[in-house]
Amino acid sequence: MKSNYADDSLTLHTDLYQINMAESYWADGVHNRKAVFELYFRKLPFGNGYAVFAGLERILQYLKDFRFSESDIAFLSEELGYKDDFIAYLKNLTFTGSVYSVKEGELVFANEPLLRIEAPLVEAQLIETALLNIVNYQTLIATKASRIKQIIKNEGSAEFGSRRAQEMDAAIWGSRAAIIGGFDSTSNVRAGKLFNIPVSGTHAHAMVQAYRNEYEAFHSYAKRHKDCVFLVDTYNTLKSGVPNAIRVAKELGDKINFVGIRLDSGDIAFLSKEARRMLDEAGFTDAKIIVSNDLDEYTILNLKAQGAKVDSWGIGTKLITAYDQPALGAVYKLVSIENEAGEMEDTIKITANAEKVSTPGLKKVYRIINRENGKAEGDYIVMADENPQVQERIKMFHPVHTFISKFVTNFDAKEMHVKVVSEGKVIYNSPSVWEMKQYALENLELLWDEYKRSMNPEEYPVDLSKKCWDNKMRNIEEVRNMVHDIEENL
Amino acid sequence: MKSNYADDSLTLHTDLYQINMAESYWADGVHNRKAVFELYFRKLPFGNGYAVFAGLERILQYLKDFRFSESDIAFLSEELGYKDDFIAYLKNLTFTGSVYSVKEGELVFANEPLLRIEAPLVEAQLIETALLNIVNYQTLIATKASRIKQIIKNEGSAEFGSRRAQEMDAAIWGSRAAIIGGFDSTSNVRAGKLFNIPVSGTHAHAMVQAYRNEYEAFHSYAKRHKDCVFLVDTYNTLKSGVPNAIRVAKELGDKINFVGIRLDSGDIAFLSKEARRMLDEAGFTDAKIIVSNDLDEYTILNLKAQGAKVDSWGIGTKLITAYDQPALGAVYKLVSIENEAGEMEDTIKITANAEKVSTPGLKKVYRIINRENGKAEGDYIVMADENPQVQERIKMFHPVHTFISKFVTNFDAKEMHVKVVSEGKVIYNSPSVWEMKQYALENLELLWDEYKRSMNPEEYPVDLSKKCWDNKMRNIEEVRNMVHDIEENL
Repeated sequence: MKSNYADDSLTLHTDLYQINMAESYWADGVHNRKAVFELYFRKLPFGNGYAVFAGLERILQYLKDFRFSESDIAFLSEELGYKDDFIAYLKNLTFTGSVYSVKEGELVFANEPLLRIEAPLVEAQLIETALLNIVNYQTLIATKASRIKQIIKNEGSAEFGSRRAQEMDAAIWGSRAAIIGGFDSTSNVRAGKLFNIPVSGTHAHAMVQAYRNEYEAFHSYAKRHKDCVFLVDTYNTLKSGVPNAIRVAKELGDKINFVGIRLDSGDIAFLSKEARRMLDEAGFTDAKIIVSNDLDEYTILNLKAQGAKVDSWGIGTKLITAYDQPALGAVYKLVSIENEAGEMEDTIKITANAEKVSTPGLKKVYRIINRENGKAEGDYIVMADENPQVQERIKMFHPVHTFISKFVTNFDAKEMHVKVVSEGKVIYNSPSVWEMKQYALENLELLWDEYKRSMNPEEYPVDLSKKCWDNKMRNIEEVRNMVHDIEENL
Repeated sequence: MKSNYADDSLTLHTDLYQINMAESYWADGVHNRKAVFELYFRKLPFGNGYAVFAGLERILQYLKDFRFSESDIAFLSEELGYKDDFIAYLKNLTFTGSVYSVKEGELVFANEPLLRIEAPLVEAQLIETALLNIVNYQTLIATKASRIKQIIKNEGSAEFGSRRAQEMDAAIWGSRAAIIGGFDSTSNVRAGKLFNIPVSGTHAHAMVQAYRNEYEAFHSYAKRHKDCVFLVDTYNTLKSGVPNAIRVAKELGDKINFVGIRLDSGDIAFLSKEARRMLDEAGFTDAKIIVSNDLDEYTILNLKAQGAKVDSWGIGTKLITAYDQPALGAVYKLVSIENEAGEMEDTIKITANAEKVSTPGLKKVYRIINRENGKAEGDYIVMADENPQVQERIKMFHPVHTFISKFVTNFDAKEMHVKVVSEGKVIYNSPSVWEMKQYALENLELLWDEYKRSMNPEEYPVDLSKKCWDNKMRNIEEVRNMVHDIEENL
């Protein structure tokens, strides 16, 4: 590396403008004003009806470690030329704010805060880039995995994408997100080691090539490995691969556990049916057929429609890169800030696009669950001092098309956020990845099937309380007046 | 983390099947047979006419550090149940092979080896996943950056995508790849620190919101920062943002360097033209207009066609995730292996798809450069004992449509690969990222414009020598006979 600086901290994993803003805030003495930021996305990915939140555990570690290292400080001073007074200030900076977050594995929707940061302005600003970087990717992959798993149903599912992942972090954190989204295992051994998740895999084409003989390669594998899945498409699936697998399985009998075969190329629909017939005829009716090769929810659905005989699916590129939509687009917006008098004031960002206008103020999110059928009626965003649970009846209305509305009674209102960091101290102990996965599965039970189908799902309601909506309108009006005044004075 | 194992090594950053194969190789005593693997991709990404290679520096570091840590060993033994004899073997394993690679910034094409690994079979196998993971992403982003830069031409270009990158490694290695591909700077401070590349950025919407007053926010920024770019779209670009920027620039005069304004939303074509007019009328004819907002080569081309007045482009999501094709799909194939007698034998992988059949044998790649015009005639893959430079005339023919051919005379044959690792020792000293970028730019001069256009470029020839092609046909025939024999004996 042509650099004199060690990679010993993630604190500079931020955009330069965050540091420039931090300097201005500090120079103006407004850096410690209390700020409230919300992290949310505006549109569900893949046309899916829900997303699966992931990334919190990594964020908590990042916040815990947040401190400029000596090499960070040296770089900022020597290379970027920040002045000594500001550098001196940065040296002792840590994260002292509070964070509220939904749990990993939680089902989440567009335009509701996934995380809420209540922190001194300067700190909340500096952590923005890393938080978005983490949540955007991990949530995207957990969602893609859940979407694919809806099609796979109870058949086996393994994440196989490390070689095509967007660099190493994506490979391991993507593996973990895939498990949270419902997958059984990953091929990445380091992910298994770091996150205590199941790893799976047998052998590759290279082994068959190395022995220059498929039969010998299978035998060799079986010598040292009790559970055998033979990869049968190195030379010719039906004429060589499957016959050799059957021959070795017959020869070795009880000495091995012949789990099955893996197909990695060709016409999977046809080959899997033929292979199934050959395995059955040879008496291996329990042998499984594992399939991989650029699969995603669409190809799997199509293969199933063709009657492909598949017991287990290995999903690589299309899952680990979220191929059809490789970015989630979550944003991080200031919704409230302390003024000179020490009072909190709401803030808003206006754009020409109505859906992109932020919703001001400190808010809470509740999931409204119908007591009669146990299903979710929608999510309900309220101002922090509101509590829908004490209300007999709530009116839920669409935040854009406000005339679409419904009254809900006899409900449970479940608060979505957990306080995970309190004044800089991490107070939340993440469950295991396996528990996160279970949590996601349980929560899927709350949703009507209409929200879960992969194509044209119904829009799950994420509504604002009347008070919250009125507050937004008031803020929009204020900005409009301000812009008008500027125009008048030009 | 619900894991007892430290993240202290990248050696387990591999697929489980690599370790299972390693065990079989070792148990059979074939693990130290000399193997030759090639890493290449089969199809250029984005419909582009060339790719820009990146990733070598990270690979060299990975190979240098390749050794199972104590925690790796503990995990393999305790959790995955590998037996003690094999575990004992792994403990002392390091990478002892040799690696030949094209340089970072080199222009590369489909079906030519980017790296050639000559190593004991077991070592070459274990490193496959990490090598692909690194090259696939970094080469993809360097290529996307180069493609976008072809449209941007001499205007400014900044990589702004960290928040949308697929986790943290992608953010920093993608920033670096963007520079290699031709970009001027990145917003990621950590990338600047680690790779000694320029960082850029000014302030965000949040700063305007925090001051609840655009004019004050701009003033505040200018107080502490000499170079000022004001973000003008927080409330209303033309009625508030641009007028406030002009007002502050006029008030402060020579006290600041008013670099210009940044537009991040709305109708960029219209807004940039209006903003240009307003800046010019105010006397700020040198003030630059910097634009961002989901840009890529297509939107930039379109904005230019509309006469947008843009001096500099900030590119985020679409670059850092290679949005329109987020995976390169490079593969790693065994092409030659030592047999029992100690001789090297060629190997091949056959598939139903002609383009996917690998090319066997130890090979070299030459770039054939026409001495008359200095332009590349194509790349020429030969068996290792061939040297095209000593030939008066070479016949280059298409490796699939063999009737498409040409004779080339009066050429220079430049060998593409450099030996970077010799028997486990890294012997190549990577140049700076800035030099890699220059290298890519110089190499683009070798290509006719027809290969560089973003839409429907001509196919650059990557051809096999007659000897190489004959060898491939012989290997295909051998496999065909082998499969036939298996069929006969069923």
